[in-house]
Amino acid sequence: MTDASSLPLYPHRHLLGISDLSPADIELLLDRADRAVAISRQSEKKTSTLRGRTQINLFYEASTRTQSSFELAGKRLGADVLNMSVASSSVKKGETLIDTAMTLNAMRPDILIIRHQSAGAAALLAQKVGCSVVNAGDGAHEHPTQALLDALTIRRAKGALSKLIVAICGDILHSRVARSNIMLLNALGAQIRVVAPSTLLPSGIDRMGVIVCRSMAEGLKDADVVMMLRLQRERMEGAFVPSVREYFRYFGLDAEKLKAAKDDALVMHPGPMNRGVEIASEIADGPQSVIQEQVEMGVAVRMAVMEALLDPRRNQEGRA
Amino acid sequence: MTDASSLPLYPHRHLLGISDLSPADIELLLDRADRAVAISRQSEKKTSTLRGRTQINLFYEASTRTQSSFELAGKRLGADVLNMSVASSSVKKGETLIDTAMTLNAMRPDILIIRHQSAGAAALLAQKVGCSVVNAGDGAHEHPTQALLDALTIRRAKGALSKLIVAICGDILHSRVARSNIMLLNALGAQIRVVAPSTLLPSGIDRMGVIVCRSMAEGLKDADVVMMLRLQRERMEGAFVPSVREYFRYFGLDAEKLKAAKDDALVMHPGPMNRGVEIASEIADGPQSVIQEQVEMGVAVRMAVMEALLDPRRNQEGRA
Amino acid sequence: MTDASSLPLYPHRHLLGISDLSPADIELLLDRADRAVAISRQSEKKTSTLRGRTQINLFYEASTRTQSSFELAGKRLGADVLNMSVASSSVKKGETLIDTAMTLNAMRPDILIIRHQSAGAAALLAQKVGCSVVNAGDGAHEHPTQALLDALTIRRAKGALSKLIVAICGDILHSRVARSNIMLLNALGAQIRVVAPSTLLPSGIDRMGVIVCRSMAEGLKDADVVMMLRLQRERMEGAFVPSVREYFRYFGLDAEKLKAAKDDALVMHPGPMNRGVEIASEIADGPQSVIQEQVEMGVAVRMAVMEALLDPRRNQEGRA
Repeated sequence: MTDASSLPLYPHRHLLGISDLSPADIELLLDRADRAVAISRQSEKKTSTLRGRTQINLFYEASTRTQSSFELAGKRLGADVLNMSVASSSVKKGETLIDTAMTLNAMRPDILIIRHQSAGAAALLAQKVGCSVVNAGDGAHEHPTQALLDALTIRRAKGALSKLIVAICGDILHSRVARSNIMLLNALGAQIRVVAPSTLLPSGIDRMGVIVCRSMAEGLKDADVVMMLRLQRERMEGAFVPSVREYFRYFGLDAEKLKAAKDDALVMHPGPMNRGVEIASEIADGPQSVIQEQVEMGVAVRMAVMEALLDPRRNQEGRA
Repeated sequence: MTDASSLPLYPHRHLLGISDLSPADIELLLDRADRAVAISRQSEKKTSTLRGRTQINLFYEASTRTQSSFELAGKRLGADVLNMSVASSSVKKGETLIDTAMTLNAMRPDILIIRHQSAGAAALLAQKVGCSVVNAGDGAHEHPTQALLDALTIRRAKGALSKLIVAICGDILHSRVARSNIMLLNALGAQIRVVAPSTLLPSGIDRMGVIVCRSMAEGLKDADVVMMLRLQRERMEGAFVPSVREYFRYFGLDAEKLKAAKDDALVMHPGPMNRGVEIASEIADGPQSVIQEQVEMGVAVRMAVMEALLDPRRNQEGRA
Repeated sequence: MTDASSLPLYPHRHLLGISDLSPADIELLLDRADRAVAISRQSEKKTSTLRGRTQINLFYEASTRTQSSFELAGKRLGADVLNMSVASSSVKKGETLIDTAMTLNAMRPDILIIRHQSAGAAALLAQKVGCSVVNAGDGAHEHPTQALLDALTIRRAKGALSKLIVAICGDILHSRVARSNIMLLNALGAQIRVVAPSTLLPSGIDRMGVIVCRSMAEGLKDADVVMMLRLQRERMEGAFVPSVREYFRYFGLDAEKLKAAKDDALVMHPGPMNRGVEIASEIADGPQSVIQEQVEMGVAVRMAVMEALLDPRRNQEGRA
């Protein structure tokens, strides 16, 4: 990362969603992330790019992998990282998100990573604080670093995303991962199919530039990438899905269904997986699975994003 | 902070309460804190003053802002900071405070930050351990760094505290913030008024060097500083306060009541705020509010306190 | 630790249990730990041995002292330390240990510290990940760093372990501490006695190379070391122990019982203690107690173990 100064300057101060990014913005972040991969593969996984910078992780929803990924990314860049355990905080005393944010802001962080159950929480925060904000998932809205790490994983395996057939399968309705991925894949010229039971498809999905398929056979035909989504436990029974067994039979990825895709199709999952629900274990652990590479790319993408947002070449804007 | 060696040596090993401090001690800490403010406003917010020193945060009561403030202060000074999440610890297995403290002490920390629900907990700890102890709030007793950050905020706005009229309003009875502030403001020569319903005034309050006022109009008249206290949720109904609406009507700070104070009076609150209970939103967010500056000064004061206590010029006393 | 390169190379990649170690392995770790003690006694408690290395603490059981000890050890060696708070993690969403481990592994840690309620969890992990694994306690199986810190404490007080009479007293049945200690003490040539009510002795204990004693008087006679074990709260009443009072009367260590041991016998306890249950306060705090030194040695042993496992002289094996 020592020669990152040769990369173009990233033009945004926050990363709130893929919807704000141009194809060039996305490619720039992926180029930076490619460099970051090497750092985590060294014995000494440490740069001083963000030395003395303060990163605060403000997670209103618990998340092992995303919070750890951001924490490691920050530490490997040399930042001081502070985890706010919101569950045991003032929030319980009735403080609003904005008051919490303003309090944190007064402690002069350089970057705030927020996950929140409400769509728009990250954007609201960005209007109020003087530092950079990264959306680590806001309700059913966006999860931009997940889409970027998925794109990085695909690009490294396939060379480019343009023209690839990508099937996104499962609970599209509630998935910020699906939304961010659809926007990113469209921006980079992939052909997107979504496969889901009708109860798990948002209305108006056809206006998002995707082809809606009602069966895995149709959706996976000749696909280059198969992205499975997590079925949230609370949606496994009842209004959305008749039963886990039925769901797996029709929409779970197994060897039989995967045959419809290209022989070298990538199998992806954002984790944590429900084995036997949306994906069979033999596929999750099989040769086409890049699920663990996704996790590795996650750290690299988050390093890239934080470096890009805090690029010392950019004039620091005034604080709110 | 590089030229801190030009400052007088701080004479204490612990910070247990304002009651232990002379006016000169207080001014010395505020002078140090003034220097620390600049560090957090830099892009690289980092010194090596406490490099290799171990700071342990031992919080028996959850507190977003205070624990984060101490953690950031330590990290910005280069210390290794360890948070003890007491809620999930041996304490649940029935270990006493002293056994926990002795265990931590054996790990050779340099400084222990403790918050505890019992008055005197910090002083008890200080007798048992070989390192410096900072009281981050003990029962209804003291919260010295809060009083110091309040004083720093006032001093930076008003130049000095001497002769200022300071009105402290709300739940004086249960407030360690009020107690520490009253002692500090007295030490520096301010004139203190307390305003509260009689159920929230401790007996003997008049012997603490304050003027007791029964109405906001009387208490705020010509005041230079209005300090609002948090009304704990569990005291909002019942024995102490007839109802939240009544409380706000008589003791909540709104534009009308604030008119009694000087035009440039500062409005303060230790946070987290109950908007519409002890303070109106328009005032909390208004031009006289220094509530966020208080938070910023909190980090600076804690940096100053830890630096002063661990001054390398002081001979290290023997360990217990 | 600057001249650690003069020490023999440690031959193992993981520390899963004492049962894997030769007497020479144990002595090598204790020699390294002796050097590490000095670091924590300095004002600047910091080396750069593990700078840029990533340590992940994965604790499925809460533990104040063990997790803190590993965290401090890592930080003092310069590593980046990440605590996984499993209680609030994907594990709650139904993710398996192996999936969690594989996810963490993909983030390229150098060392994983695991505590888990199931015997064999650490060994299972070690088969799946590409980094070093340290067992910080797995079910009733092993707790190797506890046995090493106990041995270090004894060796520093007594010079060597060979021929010493060590009495291990209390809940042998459920104690991984007892198991690891029995193996280590046997390896170094100590004579081991176990003292416990018959309900708290595992069957086949006599095949572990110990002498079974049914009374404290018999077990402590001329002992050089008395190791008390913690009686878990959930076992204090009912099937295992008639009552706490009875237990203390027959198996709790008090001044009267301790008289049977040598005058300079060491009193040890892994903590946290139940005062008045397995040990009297006067003994826990008395002149023969080395309970706090055990805690101090714990940090040193963990520094030594992590340094030895991540010795840069060892060729890095391929990642899984």
